[in-house]
Amino acid sequence: MASSLRVALSIARGRIPSLPVPPHNRTVTVRALSSGLSPPSKAVVYDQHGQPDQVTRVIDVPPIEIKENDVCVKMLAAPINPSDINRIEGVYPVRPPVPAVGGYEGVGEIYALGSSVRKLSVGDRVIPSPPSFGTWQTYIVKKEGLWHKVDKDVPLEYAATVTVNPLTALRMLEDFVKLKEGDAIVQNGTTSLVGQCIIQLAHIRGIRSINIIRDRVKTELGHAFDVKDLGPLWAGSEDVKGRLTQLGADAVFTEKQLEVKNVKELLAGVPEPALGFNCVGGNAASLVLKFLRQGGTMVTYGGMAKKPVTVSTSSFIFKDLALRGFWLQKWMSSERAKECREMIDYLLGLVRDGKFRYEMELVPFHDFDTALDKALGKLGSQPKQVLIF
Amino acid sequence: MASSLRVALSIARGRIPSLPVPPHNRTVTVRALSSGLSPPSKAVVYDQHGQPDQVTRVIDVPPIEIKENDVCVKMLAAPINPSDINRIEGVYPVRPPVPAVGGYEGVGEIYALGSSVRKLSVGDRVIPSPPSFGTWQTYIVKKEGLWHKVDKDVPLEYAATVTVNPLTALRMLEDFVKLKEGDAIVQNGTTSLVGQCIIQLAHIRGIRSINIIRDRVKTELGHAFDVKDLGPLWAGSEDVKGRLTQLGADAVFTEKQLEVKNVKELLAGVPEPALGFNCVGGNAASLVLKFLRQGGTMVTYGGMAKKPVTVSTSSFIFKDLALRGFWLQKWMSSERAKECREMIDYLLGLVRDGKFRYEMELVPFHDFDTALDKALGKLGSQPKQVLIF
Repeated sequence: MASSLRVALSIARGRIPSLPVPPHNRTVTVRALSSGLSPPSKAVVYDQHGQPDQVTRVIDVPPIEIKENDVCVKMLAAPINPSDINRIEGVYPVRPPVPAVGGYEGVGEIYALGSSVRKLSVGDRVIPSPPSFGTWQTYIVKKEGLWHKVDKDVPLEYAATVTVNPLTALRMLEDFVKLKEGDAIVQNGTTSLVGQCIIQLAHIRGIRSINIIRDRVKTELGHAFDVKDLGPLWAGSEDVKGRLTQLGADAVFTEKQLEVKNVKELLAGVPEPALGFNCVGGNAASLVLKFLRQGGTMVTYGGMAKKPVTVSTSSFIFKDLALRGFWLQKWMSSERAKECREMIDYLLGLVRDGKFRYEMELVPFHDFDTALDKALGKLGSQPKQVLIF
Repeated sequence: MASSLRVALSIARGRIPSLPVPPHNRTVTVRALSSGLSPPSKAVVYDQHGQPDQVTRVIDVPPIEIKENDVCVKMLAAPINPSDINRIEGVYPVRPPVPAVGGYEGVGEIYALGSSVRKLSVGDRVIPSPPSFGTWQTYIVKKEGLWHKVDKDVPLEYAATVTVNPLTALRMLEDFVKLKEGDAIVQNGTTSLVGQCIIQLAHIRGIRSINIIRDRVKTELGHAFDVKDLGPLWAGSEDVKGRLTQLGADAVFTEKQLEVKNVKELLAGVPEPALGFNCVGGNAASLVLKFLRQGGTMVTYGGMAKKPVTVSTSSFIFKDLALRGFWLQKWMSSERAKECREMIDYLLGLVRDGKFRYEMELVPFHDFDTALDKALGKLGSQPKQVLIF
């Protein structure tokens, strides 16, 4: 208990608050619209880096002070992203000091305000923007300027997940190659949330998409597992192809289907892509490179296969390919708060208008362990796990 | 003999000329400053693609017609470049149809002019610019506009070699990253002609260079062979380091020296480079990537190790590295004839002023076979082979 309390205190604001509240802060408490303390909270914390299913646990966090410019938010939903996993593992280059609360984006409703807060109201739906560490907890207290009000007509799971993945897709379609209507892109790891977003955001702009998926087999339990060295096409893959086509995909291939001499003969009317996206590495990255046209660019934003990207000399010299990388966290750190919020509003507007959707599974917070196992891939290929508090 | 003649005829201008000269051309012949036919020539030809030491042979080429806008040049010198080898092997994407004469750049002296040629004179020293196929022969006939007059004060071996390698070095230092005085670059394959040029052209601009060489051992015969898994430093490598330092290299490391946890600790005052050059591939390319600073760019222009470039996912995402390629032949094809000639004049001016030099071995044309063996690497590490006609 003593250990838990110490952790809870130190993680509540990233420092150890003084308890009980000292006299000069009691005045603030009196002036606040609501109570000067947040409600007690529950949080997923980790005291050290390691396997997320071994180092995380849910703890009780005692109330913390709400200062005059603070906003206390009751969290409603927050996803488990691959970067959250990597931060817990300790392999992400920017991560909070341990002990820390997990999570990086989410959505909540304003529960209480500090006395000087003017632009937000109790009951507003808000997201941390820019996103910030520690969204896997039931109550969060942060300064007013760090919250962005969002439309309540948008399903909360979209508000919870709009920043990390959809924004990555939007930026990657804009920042590397000037694409025009009728152009094409190619990507691997298409079933990822970013992959699903890329298909739709490209489609909205009249850009065709060529999509590579892993070969899958569907089990009797309904889980889709990756398979290697099995037949050419499996029911699981066909299911995935159907769902991606519904999102607007112009072509979907399994890796096995691309074991041909010239992948471009499969294109059937889709132009050679000028831009490719890689979130897998290894062979799946090589397949993206094969599709690219002369002078094309491949952007790497993930490495799910944990294998490097391998490129032939002639791809650089004679095919004039360019290889780049994208990291949203760095992009956002460059004084782009306003621009980010405008893009978030644009994306949530698309969701509200029925033009933008992706697969998610909503999981009650008390089932965190199961959601984590799914996010870790222990139960086969699963949709994005979104914790509902 | 019949076969040789057919080859000779078809390669002389890339077509089969009519012999004897038809009546309407006899008039041109009379108006020409010199004879209407070139002297008989000797040429290195290949009838099919394959191992250069197996498919090339020296043949006699009969005289060919000099038309009114043509210039007949007595070739003086031409190098054997790696791209010449690749064209003969048939692995280069742009190559002349076989049968073909080898070679792509060189220098000569004007021997005879067509009647309408005004800007060039007999005795002028000229290079083909843009470079073009078939410089390994004693007499070449091409249109006036394809020849660029160069300064006779420049040693002919520099005029013969100025286009392919020094121009590559010059462009690569200009076209990818805006470098300023005090910045640094890193490269592998530094003993290559491009590598020697990069050191000096960087040095002239106040740009520091970090240079990676293979581990070498010097034999009693004086040949320097590459070595693997030998001691940390060998006399051969020390020799090379000394020569590169004389050219202006700020730091020179063997690959073995770079088998350390953090290569950047070796830099000792040279800033982290923003730009790297790779002409080797494999581990040597990875070493260039290791030296690059956050957001740096590596340009691949060769693949001497015949191994691909392998890059970790995190290098793209978190280190924000960009990988590109450079191919001079493509760069030159884009209506850049005038710009190329200005750069050539600049580079030859540096040579004349004693500011630019590189290692070459001049070889009489009748020793072509030995020069080819050296260019193929059969006799260990050798300087650039330049044929003297």
